This record gives sequence, C-alpha cells and structure tokens, in this order.
Amino acid sequence: MDRPELCDFYTPALVNRAPLAVAIGTEGAGPVLAQMVRARVDQMLSPSLGALAHLATQYRDAVDRLVPRGLARRRFWKAFFTGDTARAVERGDVAAARRSASSLLAAGEDIPGHIALVGAGPGAEDLLTLRAQRLLMEADVIVYDALVPEAVVAMGRRDAERISVGKRKGCHSKSQEEINDLLVALGRAGKRVVRLKSGDPLIFGRAGEEMAALREASVSYEVVPGVTAAFAAAADFELPLTLRGIASSIVFTTGHDLKGRTLPDWASLAVSGATIAVYMGRSVAADVAGRLVEAGLSPDTAVAVIENASRDDRRLLHGTLSDLPSLAERSELTGPVMTLIGDAVAGANFERSKALATYKHQLERA
Amino acid sequence: MDRPELCDFYTPALVNRAPLAVAIGTEGAGPVLAQMVRARVDQMLSPSLGALAHLATQYRDAVDRLVPRGLARRRFWKAFFTGDTARAVERGDVAAARRSASSLLAAGEDIPGHIALVGAGPGAEDLLTLRAQRLLMEADVIVYDALVPEAVVAMGRRDAERISVGKRKGCHSKSQEEINDLLVALGRAGKRVVRLKSGDPLIFGRAGEEMAALREASVSYEVVPGVTAAFAAAADFELPLTLRGIASSIVFTTGHDLKGRTLPDWASLAVSGATIAVYMGRSVAADVAGRLVEAGLSPDTAVAVIENASRDDRRLLHGTLSDLPSLAERSELTGPVMTLIGDAVAGANFERSKALATYKHQLERA
Repeated sequence: MDRPELCDFYTPALVNRAPLAVAIGTEGAGPVLAQMVRARVDQMLSPSLGALAHLATQYRDAVDRLVPRGLARRRFWKAFFTGDTARAVERGDVAAARRSASSLLAAGEDIPGHIALVGAGPGAEDLLTLRAQRLLMEADVIVYDALVPEAVVAMGRRDAERISVGKRKGCHSKSQEEINDLLVALGRAGKRVVRLKSGDPLIFGRAGEEMAALREASVSYEVVPGVTAAFAAAADFELPLTLRGIASSIVFTTGHDLKGRTLPDWASLAVSGATIAVYMGRSVAADVAGRLVEAGLSPDTAVAVIENASRDDRRLLHGTLSDLPSLAERSELTGPVMTLIGDAVAGANFERSKALATYKHQLERA
Repeated sequence: MDRPELCDFYTPALVNRAPLAVAIGTEGAGPVLAQMVRARVDQMLSPSLGALAHLATQYRDAVDRLVPRGLARRRFWKAFFTGDTARAVERGDVAAARRSASSLLAAGEDIPGHIALVGAGPGAEDLLTLRAQRLLMEADVIVYDALVPEAVVAMGRRDAERISVGKRKGCHSKSQEEINDLLVALGRAGKRVVRLKSGDPLIFGRAGEEMAALREASVSYEVVPGVTAAFAAAADFELPLTLRGIASSIVFTTGHDLKGRTLPDWASLAVSGATIAVYMGRSVAADVAGRLVEAGLSPDTAVAVIENASRDDRRLLHGTLSDLPSLAERSELTGPVMTLIGDAVAGANFERSKALATYKHQLERA
C-alpha cells in the first residue's frame, strides 16, 4: 500500500480495509507495540469490512437525500454497519446486502427495536465474550442486574442509557414484572437494548419470563450465552470439575430447595461422585453440609469456596464438608459466593486458598 | 489534540494513548463507521496503555544496548507489553512496573514459558472471551483439539505455530501422555502456549492431567474459563435451563456411565425436575432414553437436540424422550451433539427446530 499522506505519522503500522484504514503510530515507543496493536485491530475488524464500507459509499447520496440528518441518519448507518446488511456482506452475499440496505432506506426512521439477553460472565470484565462486547458497543440502552460487574456495564458507549434493575438483597429494585414491561417498552420505542445478566443468562436468572414477555409483545430478541460462575471458580482453583473414573457428572444448584423435609435429589448424586456447584449465599452453607452428610456423603469430602470468582478481590477458602457450616459466620464475605463440593475438588490447587476452619482464627490473630 | 501530520488522512477519528495513537480514516464511507471503529479500538486498548508506552520509551536505549536484536529483543518487548510490567502499570503501580521491567532486562533471553489452558467456547468464534482472544494474539504456539472451531485457531498471530492434537474418534491423534509431554516441552523451551479446548477447559476434558504434568515440571500455567456447549444450545433454543418452581438444578453429564447395571444417579434427578444436559454422541441416545424411562421419567418429557450449537451450520431437533432413540439413525449428524432433557425444555422456542420423530421422513421426501 502506497499512502504518502501517512508517512509523517511516524512510520505507522497499518490495517487496510479500503476504503477504511487504521494507522497505528507509537512515536518511538517501538515497533513491537505498534505491531501488537495492529494485530489486535486487524483481528477485531471483519475481513469483509472493506466491502461493507465500499457499499456504504454507494448508498451515501441516497441516504443524505432520504434520511433526515441527525439521530435518524446516525441510526440508519448504525443499522447498516451492524445489522443484516453487514451480516450479508460477511457471508459474501452482496445481493442480499443490497436488498437489506434498500429496505433499511425504505423503512426510514422506523427502525425496529431489539433486545439482547446477554451473559456478562462471572465478574472479570475480560471474561465477557466478543459477541457480548460488540452488542454492548451497539446498544442504545443497557439494563443490568446488581451483580453485573461495573466494568462490564461501563463497556458500552458513553452516550448509552444505563438502567440498574437491582435484584440485590435488601436494595430497592424493580419487580420482575416491571423489568419485563421495561424491556418491552424499550423494544417498542425502537431501542437496541442489552439486558445484562451475570454469568450465563439462562441459569438462575428469570430470562424465561423476560423472553415470554418479549415474544408476547412481538419484540425481537436474542440470547448470548456467557461464562458461568462455577467455571470461573473452577479456573481460580485449577480444579477439574470432571475427572475420569471419579466424577463424570456435575450439578449446578442454588441450594434453595433444602428447606423441605425430603433430601434434595442432588445429594444422592453427590454421594455417587458428581461434583456439586452450589450458587448460594453464605446463609445456606450449614443446611447444604447437613443435608449432604445426612444423604451419606462423607464429612471429609473436599469443599472449595470462593467469593467474587475471577475478580481481583476474590477470596478462596477450602476445607471439608464438616467445615462448611463455619461459612455462615464469615460476615466479611459480602460478594457472590460459589461452593464446589465433591471428590474431584480434592484435586484442586489450594496454594492461594485459606483453610475454611482456621480462617476465622487467623483473622482474629491479625 | 493538535496533530497536523494527520490532517491529510481524511479527518480521521483518533484514539489517543500518547505516545501511542490510532487514527481511523474512511475515505468518505462515513463518520458513523469511523466513530464505531474508533469506539471499538478505544474499548480494546487499556486506558493505561499510554503510560506503558511512555515507560517503554525510557527503556528503549537500555534494551537496544543489552538485549540482542531479533527474536530476543522482540520477546523482551512482548513480555514488557503483555506481562507483569503491563499489569503493574494497569494497577497504577509504576514502581512495581519498573522493578518488573528491570528484572526482564536482567533475565535477558531467558524468558520463562507459560501455558494457558483456554476454553475456546462452543463453536461460534465470537463466543470466545476477550481474555482468550488476547492470549491467542500473544501465543507463540497454539495446541488444539479436533473439536475446536477452525476460526478460533485462526485467531492467533499468523506466525504462531499451530499443533493439532486430534482426539476426534477414528482419527490419528496424540495420546494424553504425549499431549502432556508436548506442553511441558514447549513450556521449558520458553514458549507462550495457548492450549485450546472446546467449551470450558475444566469439564469433560482432561485438563486435570495436563495441569498435573505442568505442576510436576514447574511450568507456569493459567486456566481461562469458557462458554460451554450446553449454554450455547440453550441460547439457540431460547430455553431457560432453570425455571422457578419447575427446574431448580441442572446436571451436565456425558451419558457414558449408562452401560453398567445400575441406573445413573442423574436419572433420579431428572425425575424430580432437574434439566439434564447430555454431552454425548448420537450413539448413546437410545441408552439415555431407555434408562431415564426406566428410572420413572415420563416418555413424554420434552427433549431438545442440537448439532453444532452456536455455529452457522447448526441443526435443531425437538421431541420427547420416546423420540430420542431415533437420533441413532441420523447419520447425517456428524458434528458434536448436545441433548437437553427435562420439563424446562418444554418452554423452549421450537420455531427453527424440526421434529425428531418426523425428521427422517421429511428427509426421505425431499
């Protein structure tokens, strides 16, 4: 590529998606940095982005003539560059891309809303998926639960509207019905919405009710899976959740079916060697331990507990089933807690972890 | 910012991490595209990257003097920009950053290897996490299983070495021991390695054995969780895996513990309403269905089956437990198959799905 106009820019690294071009200059901080950034930009931008930008130049005049300047025109181009047109170009189907662009043009200001139910991952912002990040960048509105990390909410555009719907114990928050109504109203108003749920959106959230409301109201939506807290906890403990010959299944549960008089069925599964991941607050720890021992699990079974899995401020604890009730006293653990139980847990790396049983005493001595 | 040298570059959008700068020019394809790309680049580059680049300029002379030109110098800068130095700057701890840079300088060519066990996600390349993407961009070597999507393997640098270790049925592939040895050897050779496993690395893989080998050999490693196939399948079916009052637990299993004479314990869990996600080939479908009915689950229980979850070429099928054995005949399903079973499955969206029972007949008519 010969671009003399770029030569003054400290021999930049260049990403070419002509007519789009991205130049990286480092003012002497070094070619390795420039190449690293170049590689990441190159990876981020679809190979078909040049063809899409080229198509855009062909629609430019028509759009200037037909779509009012300002919000409407900005939204046209956003839909063009991120919606069906872009996807058709990505598939290499230029005819479909033209049809889609033309129907966008015909629709004028009337661009339909869309809700993405997005898994925000377990806590660390870089455990978000690439798709989730892209949708966040495109969102007009971000609706999020209390447990979604701030850094992820911050990832959207600066001018995106952000709505917290709470759901943390003891805080004022919207009811599920109010959340459903909000999503429907935003969709009907033509907004592109990201509905962030911590972890994966389809377990232990109430995504089912939100999808039903959107379907009912004929608002378009999609679901973007995410990394769940149990996997983040396992990664932090370097703990294989399944082990050949030891644990061939894994159960995810909230531990909130313990209050009845019958043992939860997952207790017997634990006895036969499955790994149990309990998405629970500290308060149910004693119940969980008690019922598992009652079901026949050895009190010596290994237990790993983590607060704020995957986050910088995570705390790791380990011990046995008989130590687990002491968790209820750890009032300093205010973040989300994940407990992993089972024979496979014994294979974890506990180097960065404190003993559940002695942790309190250590604190007192400190 | 006043940068006259950039003015010729079609009034570009600019991301400023001085001394690093990234300019985006669109040659008339429009300011909306430029701003979208700008926002994505801005998001991708750490806010502290400017400070890191500035620190780099201060080390430049010493590095030119002390580290041999070529591979060694390139690796020094890669370690500087991606390792402890970068992380210290990110934390705002400039003193620690200087210490780390100085010890890198002292280490000279002797940069230690590192293995990242990385979840490649369920199939769609944009369901990879941001962290996994970053590690792929930094990797010297990418070691991957047969089920990892090509597009994800392709995400690394062009000059990275790529090693397939197979593990697909019937294909020549390395033994687990050979894989362990390979990872240890690469780590000892000072390589930065990404070991890609489909889905999440800690379930149904043999990550435990790889971590044990690395620990044994004192090779540094980390684990990066990923999106598992069951969540991708649930997203494709818009299927809440847990439902208040109906399904409060979910079990992941391979279905390969069915050959024994006792019923697998997860069968009873299914009976009490848990959702079952079976990571299995088509071949065990009849066994799974038979044992679940034997355990007391109704033959009318809803079942959703997906081949290649999250990928463009996915195929969705639905029906009941009594339809499940017919899966064994669907020899056209050659990709990884995920089966979801349980009362919650009835709440899925089957619009894009074909009936399990009639699918074969439709094919014959076509």
